[in-house]
Amino acid sequence: MRDDDLEEREAIRVRSEALAARANEAERFVARYTLRLAPGAAVERVAEEIALEQTVEVPDDCIPHAVRAAGVPGRVEAIAERPGGGFEVAISYRTDLAGGSLAGLLNLVYGNVSLIPGVRLVGLDFAPGQLAGLPGPGLGIEGLRRLLGVRDRPITATAIKPLGQPVAVLAALAGAYARGGIDIIKDDHGLHDQRLHPFAERAEACHEAVEAANGRTGGRSLYVPMVAGPPEAVEVQVAFAARLGVRAVMTAPLITGLESVARLARRHGLALLAHPSFAGTFLHDPGHGMTPALLLGTLFRLAGADVSIFPNAGGRFAFGRAECIGIAEALRAPLGRLAPALPAPAGGMALERIGDMVDVFGPDAVLLIGGALIRHDPDPEVAARAFRAALEGALHAREVAS
Amino acid sequence: MRDDDLEEREAIRVRSEALAARANEAERFVARYTLRLAPGAAVERVAEEIALEQTVEVPDDCIPHAVRAAGVPGRVEAIAERPGGGFEVAISYRTDLAGGSLAGLLNLVYGNVSLIPGVRLVGLDFAPGQLAGLPGPGLGIEGLRRLLGVRDRPITATAIKPLGQPVAVLAALAGAYARGGIDIIKDDHGLHDQRLHPFAERAEACHEAVEAANGRTGGRSLYVPMVAGPPEAVEVQVAFAARLGVRAVMTAPLITGLESVARLARRHGLALLAHPSFAGTFLHDPGHGMTPALLLGTLFRLAGADVSIFPNAGGRFAFGRAECIGIAEALRAPLGRLAPALPAPAGGMALERIGDMVDVFGPDAVLLIGGALIRHDPDPEVAARAFRAALEGALHAREVAS
Repeated sequence: MRDDDLEEREAIRVRSEALAARANEAERFVARYTLRLAPGAAVERVAEEIALEQTVEVPDDCIPHAVRAAGVPGRVEAIAERPGGGFEVAISYRTDLAGGSLAGLLNLVYGNVSLIPGVRLVGLDFAPGQLAGLPGPGLGIEGLRRLLGVRDRPITATAIKPLGQPVAVLAALAGAYARGGIDIIKDDHGLHDQRLHPFAERAEACHEAVEAANGRTGGRSLYVPMVAGPPEAVEVQVAFAARLGVRAVMTAPLITGLESVARLARRHGLALLAHPSFAGTFLHDPGHGMTPALLLGTLFRLAGADVSIFPNAGGRFAFGRAECIGIAEALRAPLGRLAPALPAPAGGMALERIGDMVDVFGPDAVLLIGGALIRHDPDPEVAARAFRAALEGALHAREVAS
Repeated sequence: MRDDDLEEREAIRVRSEALAARANEAERFVARYTLRLAPGAAVERVAEEIALEQTVEVPDDCIPHAVRAAGVPGRVEAIAERPGGGFEVAISYRTDLAGGSLAGLLNLVYGNVSLIPGVRLVGLDFAPGQLAGLPGPGLGIEGLRRLLGVRDRPITATAIKPLGQPVAVLAALAGAYARGGIDIIKDDHGLHDQRLHPFAERAEACHEAVEAANGRTGGRSLYVPMVAGPPEAVEVQVAFAARLGVRAVMTAPLITGLESVARLARRHGLALLAHPSFAGTFLHDPGHGMTPALLLGTLFRLAGADVSIFPNAGGRFAFGRAECIGIAEALRAPLGRLAPALPAPAGGMALERIGDMVDVFGPDAVLLIGGALIRHDPDPEVAARAFRAALEGALHAREVAS
């Protein structure tokens, strides 16, 4: 090493010590993981390895003094044995390592460890102020209720499907659902910017059909187009929708990007519905990934969802009832200064399930029934009315009972 | 339903039939899945359910005639029993349902089924021309070799780490690695736009340090900054790096968005390195998600990676040797008109492993050794020289032997 390098090194050492002196200022937050250990593995060592893997990514004896002193490496704060076997560990990180973005946060708490078997992220305990730079719900429950003119009952929603039909058919469906009184009429999540039903043509026709229905019924139903694709396409889609007068858009955060649509929606004052497409691998293994409450609840809410759609228990997917309640709680619980968001149980729900959904999720929920409406009646307006009637029936029965 | 609705419906029926008449024109491609069935489940029925779930999302008896006739529903093309148990099924989809974006493709082949246990995506057989609209490698192997001035040996790479050090220290490291002759010197993937080392300051200092080293050695080492965050931040970062004269950037496609950085890199003529952070849940379960070859090979290549970094067998992660070879093959095999890309085995590789890495991956690979260099020698320039020497030794031994 040459002399000027040594001088530079000395200057750097001084700066590093100044950095270390500020270590106590550094705010930390906590990520909680459950661990399923390989035979013979020591939990303390595995927890320590995760803490380093997620931050400095070098072995313990290669961490420079100043880096350690500044609290940069993840720190194992607690280890507890779990009743059912395995361990839960709490690791703290400097909040500023997330760099104020969701990408940075996810990279920090579950980037490389996603590649290690037996590590599941089960909780995030944020520091005050840590979430300020993240999108969060733009409207929240209050704002969405105001937009829909729905005061205190569950919100009804359905999907325009199946894809592959001409735009005029999709728009006719949207209009009929709105005439039948459904609050939110969203694109099926497979409707992207396809040749069969290009985004602009579809969004315009469906929005106009719903607005025409509103004009006739005095209702305030919302058409919600699906936006997807690379950032520049999404930007065009959201701006186009906003110009039409559309007030909410849907996206699948894990395929279109966690923050892209949220920030656009916020800029245009639109509500955001989040769809769980492509999210399943994070959720299916109780020993890996993360809990549905964390991903579809907390993280989708941080990513700007006013409504988070998830497969309800008893439908055609594999979530249990407790997991679904966990998602709903994560969406609605206090979280920094973020507005609460609405759970939207879905995925093969039938009209007969409405009473149960009301019992489980209460009034602050979006009840999303798609395919079952098609099956209920060939006339979508009739099916929509049946949906509204079933909800009213369920609410009335509960009012009488209480 | 009112009269004008009925008229509209009739007009729509006519249009739908015209659509159906074009059905034979519709190009299809094939996704292959392995299935692990619940006891008593019939493979034909499960395959059919996947085909519908991924497209029309309604029960079979609710599919409109015109939609079926146009080939919009997924179609089960083949079912085969697997030697080790379970089944492999081939399902074809209309290519235009993907809407020409990676988001659309992923949603189509593994969107909702990601939420169903026991379904793993193991192969994609694309139609000719289907990939034209996707980013793909901007430079490919040839272009990257030209940029580096490295003709036919494996490319050496290391990471600037650990994070948490002052920018001057990171830059000094980068410069030393370049003086020691390492081809690619990349940010550790945890280096985002953090207060401790803001992107602009870090990228400028590290790039200048590497350029200064190049000026001294006559080498052509590349500094590669990590870009991450919401689209507008990524856009600023990539543009800033390009203005500095940086020729390649790195991102983690699953946290920053599959297509965002690729399209920016392409616009600025930059090479792209893809990092597997947050990708692990797709890969850890042999009965769910997808194969490493498909995600880190084919899909990351489609997403524009000139280099795909993955945890090599025998390191601190859990991939097997066959899986790693599968990734390398997927990156380099013919794929439409896409340029081939380079595998970058990494994740706890030591200098002693270089001979083995050369044997397994051949010359068209990036050998990425990070933490082991720090351990090898406290002087990064000395460690870098040792890395180069170990590679030349391994290549020489093989030349002599052959």
